[in-house]
Amino acid sequence: MDFKKIDDKDLAFFRSVIGEEFVVISEEGLAKYAKDETEDLRFPPEVVVKPSNTAEISKIMAYCNEHNIPVSPRAAGTGLSANSLCIYGGVMLTIERLNKILNIDEQNLQVTTEPGVITEHLQNTVKEKGLYYPPDPSSRGTSFIGGNVACNSGGPRAVKYGVVKDFVLNLEVVLANGDVIWTGANVLKNSTGYNFTQLMVGSEGTLGIVTKIVLKLVPHPKFTLVMLAPFPSMEKAAAAVAATFQAGIVPSCMEFMEREAIDWVCKWLGDVTIPIADDVKANLLIELDGNDMDVMYKESEKLYEVLTQFDCGEILFADSDAQKTDLWRMRRNVANAVKTTAVTIEEDTVVPRYRLPELLIHIKAVGKKYNFRSVCYGHAGDGNVHVRIIKDELTDDQWKNEVPKGVREIFEKVVELGGTISGEHGIGWVQRRYMDIKFPAMHLDLMRGVKAVFDPKGILNPGKIF
Amino acid sequence: MDFKKIDDKDLAFFRSVIGEEFVVISEEGLAKYAKDETEDLRFPPEVVVKPSNTAEISKIMAYCNEHNIPVSPRAAGTGLSANSLCIYGGVMLTIERLNKILNIDEQNLQVTTEPGVITEHLQNTVKEKGLYYPPDPSSRGTSFIGGNVACNSGGPRAVKYGVVKDFVLNLEVVLANGDVIWTGANVLKNSTGYNFTQLMVGSEGTLGIVTKIVLKLVPHPKFTLVMLAPFPSMEKAAAAVAATFQAGIVPSCMEFMEREAIDWVCKWLGDVTIPIADDVKANLLIELDGNDMDVMYKESEKLYEVLTQFDCGEILFADSDAQKTDLWRMRRNVANAVKTTAVTIEEDTVVPRYRLPELLIHIKAVGKKYNFRSVCYGHAGDGNVHVRIIKDELTDDQWKNEVPKGVREIFEKVVELGGTISGEHGIGWVQRRYMDIKFPAMHLDLMRGVKAVFDPKGILNPGKIF
Repeated sequence: MDFKKIDDKDLAFFRSVIGEEFVVISEEGLAKYAKDETEDLRFPPEVVVKPSNTAEISKIMAYCNEHNIPVSPRAAGTGLSANSLCIYGGVMLTIERLNKILNIDEQNLQVTTEPGVITEHLQNTVKEKGLYYPPDPSSRGTSFIGGNVACNSGGPRAVKYGVVKDFVLNLEVVLANGDVIWTGANVLKNSTGYNFTQLMVGSEGTLGIVTKIVLKLVPHPKFTLVMLAPFPSMEKAAAAVAATFQAGIVPSCMEFMEREAIDWVCKWLGDVTIPIADDVKANLLIELDGNDMDVMYKESEKLYEVLTQFDCGEILFADSDAQKTDLWRMRRNVANAVKTTAVTIEEDTVVPRYRLPELLIHIKAVGKKYNFRSVCYGHAGDGNVHVRIIKDELTDDQWKNEVPKGVREIFEKVVELGGTISGEHGIGWVQRRYMDIKFPAMHLDLMRGVKAVFDPKGILNPGKIF
Repeated sequence: MDFKKIDDKDLAFFRSVIGEEFVVISEEGLAKYAKDETEDLRFPPEVVVKPSNTAEISKIMAYCNEHNIPVSPRAAGTGLSANSLCIYGGVMLTIERLNKILNIDEQNLQVTTEPGVITEHLQNTVKEKGLYYPPDPSSRGTSFIGGNVACNSGGPRAVKYGVVKDFVLNLEVVLANGDVIWTGANVLKNSTGYNFTQLMVGSEGTLGIVTKIVLKLVPHPKFTLVMLAPFPSMEKAAAAVAATFQAGIVPSCMEFMEREAIDWVCKWLGDVTIPIADDVKANLLIELDGNDMDVMYKESEKLYEVLTQFDCGEILFADSDAQKTDLWRMRRNVANAVKTTAVTIEEDTVVPRYRLPELLIHIKAVGKKYNFRSVCYGHAGDGNVHVRIIKDELTDDQWKNEVPKGVREIFEKVVELGGTISGEHGIGWVQRRYMDIKFPAMHLDLMRGVKAVFDPKGILNPGKIF
């Protein structure tokens, strides 16, 4: 791609718009924004700009569009597909200063927020009003809601409540040329032209920069029941998942951890007090929520009946908030445990949930073929399983050239099973080489066509998705 | 628009693809497809083609694209915005023969269906398996699921379960040039490039022709409670709606009828046995659903407390299935009652639900200003109110030139309140003149740009949305 390099004139312009202190060019400053949570990739931007509002972003975009300067919008940098890295240098535009919750509308059960608010903070703030924003990726303690929108994040509670796209009603977006639009309306039903709200969600900052977000909220459920169900095989655990929903039970979470994931996280955390018997090969972490404990107990009895049909062992019911927290801490830290102690890559497979056992068997077979270990865990209720592949003793050559062949075989199976190659991480830079497995060239050309409508010069987050 | 007129060579081609009997050119045959449920508009196509599968549609589209012949896809013709009429003549392509439910996937709680299946038939068929497809427009007894997808229909149960877009996982679509794509995957979470599934939903046949639909299903709730709550004013009824959700109650339906709607439908049906006191100015028809009657009774007590704060009169609880049916028959027939006894147009306003009272007051004020009566009713829980405007004694000139000014004032208010100009009917041909109220020209140009990516020659359902 043929972009203009940034010069002093450009920097002077940025400084005039947002103030000197918010234009970063120090080596140290750029290094901080050269990476995200994706493997060990490093792509330093030429400059980091930190605008504080829509008008400033609009000015920056109009300027960069005119001068053919690439701009990658950046949320909290918790992405797992190099979604926001500056592959072609240029400007990293971070939304970290757009960090205000603008309005909690208790009358309409909506919240309007800037994109740089930390997801968990948003959740906690609306919870104070009895309201609930359910989508919570494992990174919720650090990720921004704007990044969640860009990647259409899911997380464990998607299984009952839906993913980010199901909660976004309306978006304020700065386009590549600096124009500002509201994509939709603050309503629950909308049949007014093309659904640009849903087109923006999951578009990874390639179509525009989201500057305000209107989210639907629901009443916060009063109670949760959390339980850990052990299984003698990965396949039985996975099969129990589909059977649960078939029985008419809709847990608020149904999370899967294979034995290796459990061992890894227990070792890494060091203080997990939950006993795991030797013959346990996989766990399901299950949460029910509701407003009536009697109903929830009845539901958990029904659930127990289903799980035992798949040789479930003794179920641990969390008997205190502390134990619930401990169980969730275990689940939420699997990725951290593995990636901070080993060189890894993570794939984000998703299939119709009944096909999970087939997928898991295939993943392990592929690992055997290409000599890699993998740790599988994730949102089984949604058929969404993360596969963390570990480098171990593989040579750099194998890691770089052989493992991707294995990943390709996994994704081919995923698509064959009716699934797709990313459930909630997005494609970013690292997964785009697999897009041909899911989409024929003609389909990708349509996506490129849409991209060109919104961003004719291709300056917005170049190198991503395609 | 400069389209080619259909000649004998074209007809010969269509006959060769789908068989002579499925190519209609008789005046009588064309007349049947010249109208839908929108006012008294008549736009006869030059030919009606009735293909039976994707391959045939693909061939027809490739041919029409090559020869610059416009094609309007048609579902059941229950549209209220002239969504499918052949404004520019050309081909009407009806999907009525694509009428098979292809697969009810009980393991994954999904159904794959052709688009020509009647919505209610689809609902009943999956219900036999204990599954539920909730979106049910009032026209569900005759409308096709494909038309529901094209217009992103809602209906009364959207308030708890969501609209069509929330249930569509994946679509097979024939594009303008005859290419066939699957827009997504059969999964609950998907972050794999741009969301063309959601772009297609609600695009009213202007971007492609949907030929297969994969829908998410949920377990069918076991029980419903249906009640009719009378109010001394329209505004109080509307205010009670927002208060209900604020109290943490999520009814499966919360429908509004102003007094005039009730009188009209009771007179039209002739056999409604539900007593309506003289001082009742509006009714809410409320449904709770669930799997535990005790819980639902508790919820209805809580609901009762909320409603009485808004001077609700004596609530009628349906005490039999027959009475439930009767109440629903009343609500579902309001539009039929008004439109079959008067010349009318219907507008499909939607606002954040708390703003409903303001909207209703405004609608009546505008009616007074422009001398028209209106009947307001609809899905109050979603803030979605249909406004049926009645011609009465207005002259043709007033009807044609003055009433649209009133409609414009109503829509301006709708947008001012954070709403939009169609909640579930779509824009079609009749509402597009109001699109400038909701969207600036630059935004509409982006929509046109997207249209051009999918349909460069503009042959698909021309004259709609823009």
